[in-house]
Amino acid sequence: MSGPAHGSGLAALMDDVGRRARAAARELARTSGERRNFGIAAAARSLLSHAETILAANAQDVACATERHLTAPLLDRLRLDPPRVAAMATALTEIVALPDPVGRVLAQWTRPNGLVIQRVSVPLGVIGIIFESRPNVTSDAAGLCLKSGNAVILRGGSDSFESSRAIQACLADALHEAGLPRDAVQIVPTTDRDAVGYLLGSMQEWVDVVVPRGGRSLVSRVQRDARVPVIGHLEGVCHVYVDGAAELPVARAVLLNSKLRRTGVCGAAETLLVDRACVATHLAPLIAALLDAGCEVRGDPAACATDARVRPAEEADWGAEYLDAVIAVRCVDGVDDAIRHIARYGSGHTDAIVTAGTEVAERFLAEVDSAIVLHNASTQFADGGEFGMGAEIGIATGRVHARGPVGVEQLTSFNYRVRGSGQVRP
Amino acid sequence: MSGPAHGSGLAALMDDVGRRARAAARELARTSGERRNFGIAAAARSLLSHAETILAANAQDVACATERHLTAPLLDRLRLDPPRVAAMATALTEIVALPDPVGRVLAQWTRPNGLVIQRVSVPLGVIGIIFESRPNVTSDAAGLCLKSGNAVILRGGSDSFESSRAIQACLADALHEAGLPRDAVQIVPTTDRDAVGYLLGSMQEWVDVVVPRGGRSLVSRVQRDARVPVIGHLEGVCHVYVDGAAELPVARAVLLNSKLRRTGVCGAAETLLVDRACVATHLAPLIAALLDAGCEVRGDPAACATDARVRPAEEADWGAEYLDAVIAVRCVDGVDDAIRHIARYGSGHTDAIVTAGTEVAERFLAEVDSAIVLHNASTQFADGGEFGMGAEIGIATGRVHARGPVGVEQLTSFNYRVRGSGQVRP
Repeated sequence: MSGPAHGSGLAALMDDVGRRARAAARELARTSGERRNFGIAAAARSLLSHAETILAANAQDVACATERHLTAPLLDRLRLDPPRVAAMATALTEIVALPDPVGRVLAQWTRPNGLVIQRVSVPLGVIGIIFESRPNVTSDAAGLCLKSGNAVILRGGSDSFESSRAIQACLADALHEAGLPRDAVQIVPTTDRDAVGYLLGSMQEWVDVVVPRGGRSLVSRVQRDARVPVIGHLEGVCHVYVDGAAELPVARAVLLNSKLRRTGVCGAAETLLVDRACVATHLAPLIAALLDAGCEVRGDPAACATDARVRPAEEADWGAEYLDAVIAVRCVDGVDDAIRHIARYGSGHTDAIVTAGTEVAERFLAEVDSAIVLHNASTQFADGGEFGMGAEIGIATGRVHARGPVGVEQLTSFNYRVRGSGQVRP
Repeated sequence: MSGPAHGSGLAALMDDVGRRARAAARELARTSGERRNFGIAAAARSLLSHAETILAANAQDVACATERHLTAPLLDRLRLDPPRVAAMATALTEIVALPDPVGRVLAQWTRPNGLVIQRVSVPLGVIGIIFESRPNVTSDAAGLCLKSGNAVILRGGSDSFESSRAIQACLADALHEAGLPRDAVQIVPTTDRDAVGYLLGSMQEWVDVVVPRGGRSLVSRVQRDARVPVIGHLEGVCHVYVDGAAELPVARAVLLNSKLRRTGVCGAAETLLVDRACVATHLAPLIAALLDAGCEVRGDPAACATDARVRPAEEADWGAEYLDAVIAVRCVDGVDDAIRHIARYGSGHTDAIVTAGTEVAERFLAEVDSAIVLHNASTQFADGGEFGMGAEIGIATGRVHARGPVGVEQLTSFNYRVRGSGQVRP
């Protein structure tokens, strides 16, 4: 990573953004949850009332992108229309309705010397969000950060620069009118590619944590280069393990939903593991159900033997994140072998066991070291909303600070507040 | 940071350490708290029964260090004797007595669809500890990591290499005999200085978090170079703010204890702020008490005016971490000015207010953004043991994951365990 030297134009620009974010964070930390909600609601209204400006900016981005022959899915991801702007406003309104994550007393105890110690949630401070070209991330991420009392520095893909800038301007104006610091929501004001390197590597003084939102290459770049803490998820290589004691209808329902409800989400199953103990009864019907639902199946020899449509899996299939209607299928020797396979090929995201056996389920839940482990439930429940945590900024696969769904609670830190009556330490 | 290329001797050596630590961590994560306690207790006995070997290794280190003309305090820090070895064993025994931090159900709730979601504490995985030449850190840190189910890679100062190696061998042998993986406690097996760079920058696959233990230069180097998460504290520039509504005897007692109980600890006060509202009554007696107790005072003009022994403070005194019997004294205009001063010059470690006014105390507690804030109590309570958390590995000043005292609970992560009955996502 080679950020430009301090003192250069980019460094000065970025340091100014950082300095203003830090000042805004200090101010935000002193605001009430009601005040922040008021600001987020104002931002939602502002998006609706400035929809035309936002759509005009987006049209510029789309025109540029079309000229540059972006693929149809990327163009779709970039394009805004009135319903999408309305959805952004609705998402903000839903964030308003969440409980205030700041100022909660997380724990309280009294020491023998009479000191009363509280652990209280506080904002993280300044959050850097690095994302690709989905303009709605601008407002979604800003809403979550504001709710949790944080200032945010947004850096979107250059394809969506004009859209993001229009959305950010809308939000910042609304905050200002609501009596909150305009700099609480900033956007990196340049498409210079070195800005990301500078944000990751040279802004420790101004940025407390970076959250990458995007594909594997973005996230791994951020994790490689960041010298600030990162909350991110690399990929979701999720497994469904059908145990020997699984009821076939439950296994079929959980498997089909885990794989096919939506194939492009990080909680989608990518590998089916079937216990050799039920291969004779369960393997063929499960594979047939997948194939009949339009899913490509790549299997080990036992899986291939069940149906001519199954293609032989290669080593690279174990551990592949297809994000598509493709699944890898392998037979394993019971739960221990399943746990070993997941430890070797999984990504620590979400894994499920289907079984009627409580003991084997508990072993799986205790020993599979993933952010989310499920018994008799679809891996597609890997979602902050489904967990009852409200909107999320992603599913963290790291082990430090946040793990699993990252909602507004996970965007807080805490401190200790100690009340005494003159105690001194012996 | 320029770690050696993969494939070189050092890289191969370090990757082997990392790979074995990861395997040990996986094994440890499946052990019971009882088993780990058994191992830590065995390690404590092993230290005592191998005291002679450890002291012989330490004598080598001390001889080398003497030849290299280390200062007396550094030599004292390095030197072991039978009581110090016994103290190491006692510290391990105390860790055994702590509650098991792993497998705790941190939260549990049921969703409308019947899914039961638990958040359960799990080990972090592999912890790298980088420390200076205090050999006892080897066993203290290893004990805390083992208690929380983590494997540890220790890297001490080269001055204490033989001592650390002897202690580590002792612990690893004891673990092995207790049926736990020997590789759960490893030491970087070389004094090559590049090993630290490699540990920080190239071992993301094997190391989940790094904890630096030592002075500011070590910690800031680690924070600058690490590409894995860091839990560390930079420094403790702790303040005592004496508010206009403070009772003088309480202020005097809290101040003297905060500054002088021990001057070399990170929770020692370095700056006294006095509200202009009580300067006439409180400033002179507080300064006299400090001077009479042997503390050097560097003050602003108001402080200098109280006593000829007060030297004028320079700009560098605000924000200085003296770790010595020296204090900076300044008058401020009430709690807001105190909060501003602390935000500007403090290090986010520990700060205290002395006042009889509840409202002003609550403002200070809510608005001073430090890991620990106290009302009418000494800053020297900044300590895991004093908080009732047991032994600690340090006081974290970062905002991510851990903040304040880092005990065994803070060395854990968590995951979500979801129990269903065949639920699929609509």
